[in-house]
Amino acid sequence: MNSLQAIWAAESIAVIGATDRPGAMGRLPIEYLQKYEYPGFIAPVNRKGGQVMGLPAFRSMAEIGRSVDLALVMVPASAVLAAVTDCAQVGTSVCIVMTSGFAETGADGAKAQAELVRVARAHGMRLVGPNCIGAVGGPARVFATFSPVFSSTATPIPAGNIALVSQSGALGFGALSLGLERGVPIGIAVTTGNEADITAVDVAAQLVDDPSVDAVLMYIESLSDISALASAAAMKPIAVVKAGRSEAGAKAAASHTGALASADKVVDSALRQAGIARVADIDALLDAGALFATGARMPRRRIGIVTTSGGSGILAADAIEACRMQLAELEATTIADLSAVVPSYGNATNPVDVTAAVMAEPGLFEKCVDRLAADPGVDAIVACFAVLVGADVTRIARALGAVRTRTGLPVLAVRTGAASLAPEGAAVLAANGVPVYPTPERAVAALQALHATSLRRTRANPTGPLAQVPEVGASEKQVKQILAAAGLPVPESVLVSSASEAVSAISQVGGLAVCKAIVPGLLHKSDAGGVVLGVTAQNAVEVFTRLEALGGQVLVERFVQGGVEAIVGITPSALGPVLTVGIGGILAEIVADAAVRLLPVDECDVREMIAETALAPMLAGARGAAPSDLEAFVRMVLQLASCTREWPTGFELDLNPVAVLGDGCWILDAMYADALDLNLFQGIEGH
Amino acid sequence: MNSLQAIWAAESIAVIGATDRPGAMGRLPIEYLQKYEYPGFIAPVNRKGGQVMGLPAFRSMAEIGRSVDLALVMVPASAVLAAVTDCAQVGTSVCIVMTSGFAETGADGAKAQAELVRVARAHGMRLVGPNCIGAVGGPARVFATFSPVFSSTATPIPAGNIALVSQSGALGFGALSLGLERGVPIGIAVTTGNEADITAVDVAAQLVDDPSVDAVLMYIESLSDISALASAAAMKPIAVVKAGRSEAGAKAAASHTGALASADKVVDSALRQAGIARVADIDALLDAGALFATGARMPRRRIGIVTTSGGSGILAADAIEACRMQLAELEATTIADLSAVVPSYGNATNPVDVTAAVMAEPGLFEKCVDRLAADPGVDAIVACFAVLVGADVTRIARALGAVRTRTGLPVLAVRTGAASLAPEGAAVLAANGVPVYPTPERAVAALQALHATSLRRTRANPTGPLAQVPEVGASEKQVKQILAAAGLPVPESVLVSSASEAVSAISQVGGLAVCKAIVPGLLHKSDAGGVVLGVTAQNAVEVFTRLEALGGQVLVERFVQGGVEAIVGITPSALGPVLTVGIGGILAEIVADAAVRLLPVDECDVREMIAETALAPMLAGARGAAPSDLEAFVRMVLQLASCTREWPTGFELDLNPVAVLGDGCWILDAMYADALDLNLFQGIEGH
Repeated sequence: MNSLQAIWAAESIAVIGATDRPGAMGRLPIEYLQKYEYPGFIAPVNRKGGQVMGLPAFRSMAEIGRSVDLALVMVPASAVLAAVTDCAQVGTSVCIVMTSGFAETGADGAKAQAELVRVARAHGMRLVGPNCIGAVGGPARVFATFSPVFSSTATPIPAGNIALVSQSGALGFGALSLGLERGVPIGIAVTTGNEADITAVDVAAQLVDDPSVDAVLMYIESLSDISALASAAAMKPIAVVKAGRSEAGAKAAASHTGALASADKVVDSALRQAGIARVADIDALLDAGALFATGARMPRRRIGIVTTSGGSGILAADAIEACRMQLAELEATTIADLSAVVPSYGNATNPVDVTAAVMAEPGLFEKCVDRLAADPGVDAIVACFAVLVGADVTRIARALGAVRTRTGLPVLAVRTGAASLAPEGAAVLAANGVPVYPTPERAVAALQALHATSLRRTRANPTGPLAQVPEVGASEKQVKQILAAAGLPVPESVLVSSASEAVSAISQVGGLAVCKAIVPGLLHKSDAGGVVLGVTAQNAVEVFTRLEALGGQVLVERFVQGGVEAIVGITPSALGPVLTVGIGGILAEIVADAAVRLLPVDECDVREMIAETALAPMLAGARGAAPSDLEAFVRMVLQLASCTREWPTGFELDLNPVAVLGDGCWILDAMYADALDLNLFQGIEGH
Repeated sequence: MNSLQAIWAAESIAVIGATDRPGAMGRLPIEYLQKYEYPGFIAPVNRKGGQVMGLPAFRSMAEIGRSVDLALVMVPASAVLAAVTDCAQVGTSVCIVMTSGFAETGADGAKAQAELVRVARAHGMRLVGPNCIGAVGGPARVFATFSPVFSSTATPIPAGNIALVSQSGALGFGALSLGLERGVPIGIAVTTGNEADITAVDVAAQLVDDPSVDAVLMYIESLSDISALASAAAMKPIAVVKAGRSEAGAKAAASHTGALASADKVVDSALRQAGIARVADIDALLDAGALFATGARMPRRRIGIVTTSGGSGILAADAIEACRMQLAELEATTIADLSAVVPSYGNATNPVDVTAAVMAEPGLFEKCVDRLAADPGVDAIVACFAVLVGADVTRIARALGAVRTRTGLPVLAVRTGAASLAPEGAAVLAANGVPVYPTPERAVAALQALHATSLRRTRANPTGPLAQVPEVGASEKQVKQILAAAGLPVPESVLVSSASEAVSAISQVGGLAVCKAIVPGLLHKSDAGGVVLGVTAQNAVEVFTRLEALGGQVLVERFVQGGVEAIVGITPSALGPVLTVGIGGILAEIVADAAVRLLPVDECDVREMIAETALAPMLAGARGAAPSDLEAFVRMVLQLASCTREWPTGFELDLNPVAVLGDGCWILDAMYADALDLNLFQGIEGH
């Protein structure tokens, strides 16, 4: 057994802080393990010894006389270090510390938490928590938790091919109980709390290796190792609720787990790039799980709808557009065949509306689903019912299940009506591989999640020439020289120190120039009046004098006129360097219309980024303007991303504007700052 | 009884097409009326006479020998006209035509449908449908429907202070059953189908007059009379699912009810302006209903959160930002008091995290809710539980209910866990005035809906000078003259017909001019090369010759340089004239960053519109630029909206760009087209 697997497959469990006392948390894991007939060895540990729930209690881990796979630490915070040490010394595989009062309380707690990790690592023991509610599940029925969810006899034993990992303990077990109640087959649930050692990503990476697990649902507040999560997602579908989206939420996240939330847009792109579905809330997470559990995949996005209610059909079509999925366009023969069976007051195109006529003609619905599924333009079927009454359910479930089995397409049912009208409905449909949702919107969102996890793109790592690393505090001129040397398009320029040099430099660059003050630490030259456009020999002296007064040298550069202004930048993030592409110039920050991707990127990524922004219509030629050289721009962005790939972590590079002309594109300004500069400038101008 | 009230308060009901035959739709209304003990008079009508369900059947409406409040028409389409005529002739108040096969099938059906309306109106009878599933509810238990929802004994009798109106029959009754199952107190449900005579808006307007109704939930596909709906919303809260959001959805809407969907953005603004909550889906509609039912109001938007799970708190904070609500900022004394009771590993600021410590200390949660509610900066409370187990529910429900009663604040509970852990939970909480939601996101969305309906703004109708109505095909010069005469800022200009006139005109307007080709029917002059900037006496002749060659006269106008470019326009819509404000110039269509409002607007509206767009930061002065004259721009927009208020329906006026300078603003281009022009231009250039 891999050590992490002990969390859900332990064959022996110790509970430190176990007690008989009714209402005490330390009683619950033993109670649950006994109630649900855990087949392994249970060792209550209590320094007073005696018996706990009829089992002999050990005074220490050492007294057990054998190592255990899993130890649960449920003693007060002040006693946790001793308990963890005790576990580590006897060769425990994994120790779950439930106790709160560590990094989430401040610096002292963080220090105490670091000490737990130090002790664990020194002995090769892995540690879950602290500040979590443990784990549950697996064929061995490992109830390593004190969650009150299992106090209720109404809670079923977790079983099924879906795993759930949650940084939040209470929310994780709440979501588990909600999922089980809704019939989502969750077989394993793990909560990770403060993640002192083991993170939710570590757990997910181990879970996708487990043959009993077909997909993973996650609730996470902090995310730092996207590449491990991406590798896991390459094996099995993963859907994620990532909290801390808002500024307010990010603040709450920081105070909750002591982890700083990464910038949300970067997280969004990183998850998408990794083929991970980011979903809106716990409802959507469970909805995705119900669909993942069927084993369906959806590499394309064309959805066919059959509905008994025109209204549901329209809502489904709305949702498809909102989720950037596609309403399938049916073939003419499909429409002709449907027209032969759908009533004239229904609709034989997608969404196919069979109307309330199904009440009188029961087979109508099945006929339409069958025919729709046979259309090669349909990648998934959503069957909408408003009211689904008892008598119809089994027949319809079989018909939908048959289509699911025969075609392999995902088939989803929507029932926007009381479950009590056909209480067995959801279960019968699910047994036929057809998950049920209350609204068309939720069914379509589940398909969007499935689609996001069904795309597999293999990215070649970039090769090609590397650009030299700029020095600390490199000037615009130096950065541009480095970029030009790496083959990037930079207009000719000359750095001058006198008015007469300026005059001759202007003729050198073609007679019309841009003159810029090069002053160390001056990042936003335009704001400071440090840039003059369209300088000729005539006004060169006056311009030079003005710019020199700002305190540095002057750069004389060929004046590139017109074109579409873009911004291209690389900035650091918690997940690695991020490429940004968007509308440039003065509009860049105002319109805030930029696409971001974690590096590395390939050509498809760059084209996708441009398409996401208003650059796409601008480059295509707005309002009768000639189109710009999109290809040159794509080449430039790729080359930039590639040639900087070995620059040291934490640098920021801003090219703004990049002018994209009818023929070629030019980097007109370049700002570089390394991690050191950035700290400095933060103080100076709130950059 | 007002005639529309008969739909839910009829004291006598005739069912035309009534039959004994099991499985027949014509049997169901009688079955339901009998089963649920309708106290009024039931008259089965069947041309064969005899008995239906033990009641004597009449051969015709006339044979009944008395008028009835409500008649249900359930005969085949071909027999509907005769039945409607029969009803009308004996003085029936309202006739509900369930039968399909009218306007939704095409032109012939539409003609047949119009004939039904003609007959009804000739006799002063109102008509619901055709193509609907009728209505249900009210104290009289009027089951005027064949919906299979009431075949099930599990469906409760509709009761409560919420009304539901749906254009879609199946979806309406499905949503009703779902709502009743979830405990939303829906007392009346009406479906309106093709809306040949009575629309969903008509029904809503009548429902808000009914003392048994405290709020209205609506599903609508087409919306034409916003002012009637706004009047209804001024009386009681209304939440709406408006389908046909997407292009695909709009298409489906058109084929479903024969009603053209209005442009979605206009609908959105119109509903917001009217104080109506537009919600995302049927889940959100029922969620809003559950909150409306408590009678709470929320004119401000500051939300306080108490949670047992840090995770739920973060998700709630995320949702608050996404919904443009506010996370309440607590007073220092509140935080101090909370700190005294919340554990150190929790959080005493908003969101207040009491942690799993509540398991050990039951009163902790109530203490925190009480203290939070006492903070004057809190307008609503969301209490988040992940797992809520049986023993706690009654105690917590009472505590939350007491806060709700004492403070009048909306109090909502979130339970992201199985209902089976406390099966009576939702009902006990609801009985205490506390609706329950499965996720923080849904609770916050319900509060957003409540807030949207709690704002009441009274708008004075605009007064002030009127601008003359432009003639059909008015030129830019003519339109600008009209606007200038109404006091709007237009630069001086001269219309010239010769090169020499052009030269002298340039000196007249100050020596630097913009020259424009004025060619009838040429709407987008820039695209055609018809605009030349910065013309002086030197190049006047050359420019005039070039522009004249486009086939019209030339306008010489003072050249206004710099400033922020805005677009201001008025366009027709299905709901009335719409004002648009946004970034102007060439970016207007690319960035598509414009705010829209139905006219009339007041100063608050115009400021809000600017704030919604990137105009706000641009006018404030981007990247060190000087701020522009926001006040002049607001004045100009208001004046424009006011002076055109009596122009005939259907015109389009485009001011683009309007240059907003440091001091004042100027209308640099103006395009006018009346309804006739627009039809013409649509053919010519797809305008």
